[in-house]
Amino acid sequence: MSNPLREEKVFKDPVHKYIYVQDRTIWDLINTKEFQRLRRIRQLGTCFLTFHGAEHSRFSHSLGVYEVTRKIISQFERNRYEDWPSEERLLCLCAALLHDVGHGPFSHSIEKTFGTHHEDWSCRIVLGNTEINRVLSEVSPTFPQQVAGVIAKTYHKEIVVSLVSSQLDADRMDYLLRDAYFTGVNYGTFDLERILRVMRPFQGHIVMKESGMHAVEDYLMSRYQMYWQVYFHPVTRSAEIILHKIFQRAKQLYEENYSFTFMLSPLLSLFRQSLTVQEYHMLDEALMQTVLMQWSYEKDEILSDLCTRFLNRSLFKYVLLEQIEAKQIERLRETMQGLGIDPDFYLAIDYPSDLSYDVYRPGDHDEKLPILLLDNKDTLTEISLKSDIVRSISGIHMGKYHLYFPEELLLHSQRKSIAPDIRKLLGMD
Amino acid sequence: MSNPLREEKVFKDPVHKYIYVQDRTIWDLINTKEFQRLRRIRQLGTCFLTFHGAEHSRFSHSLGVYEVTRKIISQFERNRYEDWPSEERLLCLCAALLHDVGHGPFSHSIEKTFGTHHEDWSCRIVLGNTEINRVLSEVSPTFPQQVAGVIAKTYHKEIVVSLVSSQLDADRMDYLLRDAYFTGVNYGTFDLERILRVMRPFQGHIVMKESGMHAVEDYLMSRYQMYWQVYFHPVTRSAEIILHKIFQRAKQLYEENYSFTFMLSPLLSLFRQSLTVQEYHMLDEALMQTVLMQWSYEKDEILSDLCTRFLNRSLFKYVLLEQIEAKQIERLRETMQGLGIDPDFYLAIDYPSDLSYDVYRPGDHDEKLPILLLDNKDTLTEISLKSDIVRSISGIHMGKYHLYFPEELLLHSQRKSIAPDIRKLLGMD
Amino acid sequence: MSNPLREEKVFKDPVHKYIYVQDRTIWDLINTKEFQRLRRIRQLGTCFLTFHGAEHSRFSHSLGVYEVTRKIISQFERNRYEDWPSEERLLCLCAALLHDVGHGPFSHSIEKTFGTHHEDWSCRIVLGNTEINRVLSEVSPTFPQQVAGVIAKTYHKEIVVSLVSSQLDADRMDYLLRDAYFTGVNYGTFDLERILRVMRPFQGHIVMKESGMHAVEDYLMSRYQMYWQVYFHPVTRSAEIILHKIFQRAKQLYEENYSFTFMLSPLLSLFRQSLTVQEYHMLDEALMQTVLMQWSYEKDEILSDLCTRFLNRSLFKYVLLEQIEAKQIERLRETMQGLGIDPDFYLAIDYPSDLSYDVYRPGDHDEKLPILLLDNKDTLTEISLKSDIVRSISGIHMGKYHLYFPEELLLHSQRKSIAPDIRKLLGMD
Amino acid sequence: MSNPLREEKVFKDPVHKYIYVQDRTIWDLINTKEFQRLRRIRQLGTCFLTFHGAEHSRFSHSLGVYEVTRKIISQFERNRYEDWPSEERLLCLCAALLHDVGHGPFSHSIEKTFGTHHEDWSCRIVLGNTEINRVLSEVSPTFPQQVAGVIAKTYHKEIVVSLVSSQLDADRMDYLLRDAYFTGVNYGTFDLERILRVMRPFQGHIVMKESGMHAVEDYLMSRYQMYWQVYFHPVTRSAEIILHKIFQRAKQLYEENYSFTFMLSPLLSLFRQSLTVQEYHMLDEALMQTVLMQWSYEKDEILSDLCTRFLNRSLFKYVLLEQIEAKQIERLRETMQGLGIDPDFYLAIDYPSDLSYDVYRPGDHDEKLPILLLDNKDTLTEISLKSDIVRSISGIHMGKYHLYFPEELLLHSQRKSIAPDIRKLLGMD
Repeated sequence: MSNPLREEKVFKDPVHKYIYVQDRTIWDLINTKEFQRLRRIRQLGTCFLTFHGAEHSRFSHSLGVYEVTRKIISQFERNRYEDWPSEERLLCLCAALLHDVGHGPFSHSIEKTFGTHHEDWSCRIVLGNTEINRVLSEVSPTFPQQVAGVIAKTYHKEIVVSLVSSQLDADRMDYLLRDAYFTGVNYGTFDLERILRVMRPFQGHIVMKESGMHAVEDYLMSRYQMYWQVYFHPVTRSAEIILHKIFQRAKQLYEENYSFTFMLSPLLSLFRQSLTVQEYHMLDEALMQTVLMQWSYEKDEILSDLCTRFLNRSLFKYVLLEQIEAKQIERLRETMQGLGIDPDFYLAIDYPSDLSYDVYRPGDHDEKLPILLLDNKDTLTEISLKSDIVRSISGIHMGKYHLYFPEELLLHSQRKSIAPDIRKLLGMD
Repeated sequence: MSNPLREEKVFKDPVHKYIYVQDRTIWDLINTKEFQRLRRIRQLGTCFLTFHGAEHSRFSHSLGVYEVTRKIISQFERNRYEDWPSEERLLCLCAALLHDVGHGPFSHSIEKTFGTHHEDWSCRIVLGNTEINRVLSEVSPTFPQQVAGVIAKTYHKEIVVSLVSSQLDADRMDYLLRDAYFTGVNYGTFDLERILRVMRPFQGHIVMKESGMHAVEDYLMSRYQMYWQVYFHPVTRSAEIILHKIFQRAKQLYEENYSFTFMLSPLLSLFRQSLTVQEYHMLDEALMQTVLMQWSYEKDEILSDLCTRFLNRSLFKYVLLEQIEAKQIERLRETMQGLGIDPDFYLAIDYPSDLSYDVYRPGDHDEKLPILLLDNKDTLTEISLKSDIVRSISGIHMGKYHLYFPEELLLHSQRKSIAPDIRKLLGMD
Repeated sequence: MSNPLREEKVFKDPVHKYIYVQDRTIWDLINTKEFQRLRRIRQLGTCFLTFHGAEHSRFSHSLGVYEVTRKIISQFERNRYEDWPSEERLLCLCAALLHDVGHGPFSHSIEKTFGTHHEDWSCRIVLGNTEINRVLSEVSPTFPQQVAGVIAKTYHKEIVVSLVSSQLDADRMDYLLRDAYFTGVNYGTFDLERILRVMRPFQGHIVMKESGMHAVEDYLMSRYQMYWQVYFHPVTRSAEIILHKIFQRAKQLYEENYSFTFMLSPLLSLFRQSLTVQEYHMLDEALMQTVLMQWSYEKDEILSDLCTRFLNRSLFKYVLLEQIEAKQIERLRETMQGLGIDPDFYLAIDYPSDLSYDVYRPGDHDEKLPILLLDNKDTLTEISLKSDIVRSISGIHMGKYHLYFPEELLLHSQRKSIAPDIRKLLGMD
Repeated sequence: MSNPLREEKVFKDPVHKYIYVQDRTIWDLINTKEFQRLRRIRQLGTCFLTFHGAEHSRFSHSLGVYEVTRKIISQFERNRYEDWPSEERLLCLCAALLHDVGHGPFSHSIEKTFGTHHEDWSCRIVLGNTEINRVLSEVSPTFPQQVAGVIAKTYHKEIVVSLVSSQLDADRMDYLLRDAYFTGVNYGTFDLERILRVMRPFQGHIVMKESGMHAVEDYLMSRYQMYWQVYFHPVTRSAEIILHKIFQRAKQLYEENYSFTFMLSPLLSLFRQSLTVQEYHMLDEALMQTVLMQWSYEKDEILSDLCTRFLNRSLFKYVLLEQIEAKQIERLRETMQGLGIDPDFYLAIDYPSDLSYDVYRPGDHDEKLPILLLDNKDTLTEISLKSDIVRSISGIHMGKYHLYFPEELLLHSQRKSIAPDIRKLLGMD
């Protein structure tokens, strides 16, 4: 099934040093226009506004997921593990490379506003009239369906799905290392080589040798730290909120037949929820940023102000709240309206664990497969039953409320118009 | 003159670990819209098409240049060197931070086609009606002029200019380390801390203690390697050439009154050479990439083809030539025309050292200040007089010709139409 | 009190890049023969037999503790914190540099056998007739007493003691980073720069800004991992046990008036518990290893066998036990005696948490000062009250029993002589 | 011939992350007492007195050379290069592991004084009555002879010898990276993975693809920097000189029938040039340091003084001389004698390039094999013919004279006794 290249190709990569390509199919997939498009989508969305190094793209992450998968499989093959279905090698590699190919610009905000799902788009691109589909079809007519199946987690062999998508998959292993590298924090570093060495295919699962338990703990602690130090950083959340408000406003204006000075067809189709695969291809971060720049000159004041804020990084301020009192929030909204500030677009309450917070929680309604330890008597145990560390971080309730609002509210001139308890809520005193 | 922040601010930076801001002026400059715009300009232009990690922006580099300058000055102050004009501290820091603020998208290609200069734009932004100008004017009415003077290298104190612009300046020290970090190559690494430790202000110059000569050699070798491994990489050059051809074609079409399906005002002003500072602000890489995407659907076949090539990374192939024979190139052009390929837009000869190749060459008509060694008898000597290594790399003539052309020329079907010597030239046999 | 050097001196250090010396007193202390002796004592005792990179000495660690202390104080001074008693700077630096100066070779085993304490020796060296004492006395006649007071934790200002000795002191911050670097594991890495930045002198304590809580969690997790992956590694423990048995045997022989073929006076004084400071100076790891080599040819078979085992790394094997049954151990001893193996010297039960296991446990009878968080209302809270992570690792009961014994017991030839339950205990089946 | 382990074993290594052992023969060799002895010999002799991190042993370097060799061969096998004689795999690995097994303590000084050669000892250990010989003999009766042949560079296949010993061999690749890591300098770092990737077996040679020329240049520059920054550092040379003088003095005393208070048999045999393999085994650095410590109390003043200097790092001072004038040196010797200082033991002239300075010099009478580049027409060219950088560093004449002498000569009290020109020579004014 595989069609080896005459000579191994390499990509220089800051995280894995080199990424090795040995199959023509992988090489051809990387050179499709749909895969090249990932260069125009940032891996961490708005996070570069908090950590200026985080400007890396989904292109480099996708290559990284492929490379981690390749290393795992290469280890399985070198050790000739019987439980490894070696005929699935190319399928795993392709799914690893392509699992994020449907990501759009600033996915979180757009998905939240328009109800799209990047996994669906990955499958549409794999199955549609695309260069990727043509490359995959050369392997076999049913190969695109198989790849889409792995991405959608419906493929019939768990072991294949779990390499790409589980609590300890190639996706997470690459993004923790990569995001740590580019942001410059060192929380995300863990011993990848050791984790790969204790991985085993076993009775249809990917499991970890028990002797590697501390390495897995270390990996899970990295994840915990990355979530709280990087992914849920309130400045990043503030930028996400502004983006979401921009799309909400634009959608509202569109529905009210507002006449936009600047509009491009892929965006229009997004509003109409009628995007084709071809239009989706054009919908990259360059386009979205151009739109934001152009809209910063729109006559609608809310839209233009929010766009300007995003571009110039004049983000909302935030305060931390232990709890939310509905009545008080209502009064804050009224105060804002009194000051001529529309709370629908200038006030937000955020609770990060609403997001797919995935520090490992067994028993949770999480679609991700759990981490299993294999002892030297061939017994499997879910890790939190053996590791005190994992058990303790699993039970931790993490989130706190953040209230986001524009700095103007804190200006002295408006002090008198604001009731004392609201002033206290906003930390004005 | 300086106005310290109540509490030091920090930016997490992968290269310097942290970037420390202690002055309100610096903090305010970073928050201007003109400085934030640098987030939308890549540091290495098209290099990300060769090294996928090289997606970092001029924003992070500019912070880095500031930080290196801050560290140098802090060392000078800690050691209370008498030759250091301490009143110039804030000026140095501001010039370091802002020296690249005039960079546009894909500067090399645009400057080559339209004759703009990023240094001029840096000065226009510093002196024009901008947020940056307002922040600088708060220091003193003449401060913007002074900052522009340092950037333009006309300021009357060499020591101030040379911190930002010399053979061993904060600019180069940051970009070598940063570009090495993001590309993932390790050629660019040198011992920054040691170099900073042997720097001295001395009689109006910045000089190096002779005991640090080997550290300087190491830095110059890093530069040499970065030039040949990264900056002049033929794949990067190939992308630059395509971009240049795109702008050339668009300019030609504009002059022929071609009606573009997609056009935005800043671009039009670029064609007309009438850009205002406000329009220049909108001319970022997001806009340029959106234009390329839209133009990939233009009816002009050359323009749309070149844009598609750039976006999908279907770059020109290249062959290395020891020398160029005018007659043979002419025959190659004729061959291409015979095949219906316009050589004006599909053929290029590139000689990297045409670029500002700046491995250190004493006596060259280089505006950059040389590196001076200070021995323990307070004598200054230009480094190549003492270092065999520096002398030997200074004399090396590096460049080779590369011939760039589209892969179609190599297709078998066209074999017959191509004369044997041209086939040999293109490496077809 | 301080006497600055004419020019800053530096040491190249792999962990901190450079170590900066600015005071003549520090420079002179480093050049004393007692401090140079630390080059002949390994930082991690027998750990190099498990991690071959761990061959670094207490000399480099002591410089590192000094450097971390210097950085902390320099931050305090730069920010002009009022609660910092700036007159204590030199005292802190000297105590940091010298706190380990009394360490002997393979401290744990020797202290366990002969009842010595390295802290006592540090104080004896500081106060005795030594070069160190002479250098310190030049500062002031009472200065040696003050330094000894800080090392002994009896000095009257907690803030001075806690820099060198607390749950988050310069000692631990250096050794975690250093031991991680030299072993090559990456568990021990944490963001030193960030931790230094959130440290504050406050009302006589060293405290941490609450905003740095996650950084402290990360540091404590590093410590946890280093303990279980490195310091308590069973192979290291196995080597420690053999060393302890060697000293026990030698002491027994000495008390039985055995005539050693090879003996040196410092060792004799160690047996007699009459070591002088001058003899202690000669008692370094070179001497101990030479003694082990010579004793490997002693006629006493137990002593010569144990020494040979240590030198050639033929260590005891181990099995993990959930619990210890006294009766079964007794039968194992009898089995060994039946096979002609003396269980007093060839059998050991080890429970690592008998050692000074110091993952943070509030309320424990630990002499180390706790970690206090300072919120923005100037309230202090002990960290485990705020951090779920710290609370959860504090409560974890870590240790497990390991049974150590020579591999011969597992040999097939002896199989028949061993009862089935003992065979099972030793993992023979 | 190979006998694979049931399960791969690993060593954690700071330089290569992990060292993989797959053959029982390699595992058994590592566990011999002769190989374990390398833990008691420092890799860089006296260099730890200059760079305190350089305390690593020849044990870790030998594992590293093995690992680099294993990686090279594994690459050759993965690519199924026809010119690779795959039957030589185990021989290469064993020779790589064992090539330094004959190193004694402080090799340079001892070899210089007593005329021993570590290569000879490596062969004697491989061929003698040793555990290593027994392990090798299990492979085949002639295998020890083959391994000794590779170490002695007399083996009939150049390709096997050159993996372990050439201008670009596994030995150098490991020691540059390892010495850079442990000293903490970053000059020695180069892109090992890339160099391995461009290596090829070709017609009986190991060659480099021409496309990797810049990587080789980078490696050679690393070597150049390491020589001048680390290996030839004058402080390290000063310690070497003192050691050499100690051995010279001891030898002289021995020949004069001086009665040593402290003496051990291996040392005596060294004096008598009658060392057996068994005695050589005992001659480790622990023994040498113990001897130095004991001799620091000898009644011979020169011997005791020199030993004290070495242990307490009271090294000789040095001045740099452009040239040496015999007459002036003679007068300096007389001056010293006048001051009661014996110039035979307290004065030395050092010229580092007397040592095996091995920055690449083609045409030199160097036994090391040159570096050959392979172009895509299968032509081989010696690298300096293609690389300007290599050619230029090859021609550089590096060394300078250093004059070493005790600091006492600089003391003011003796000023009057010293003639002005000698004062100037010593830099006293």
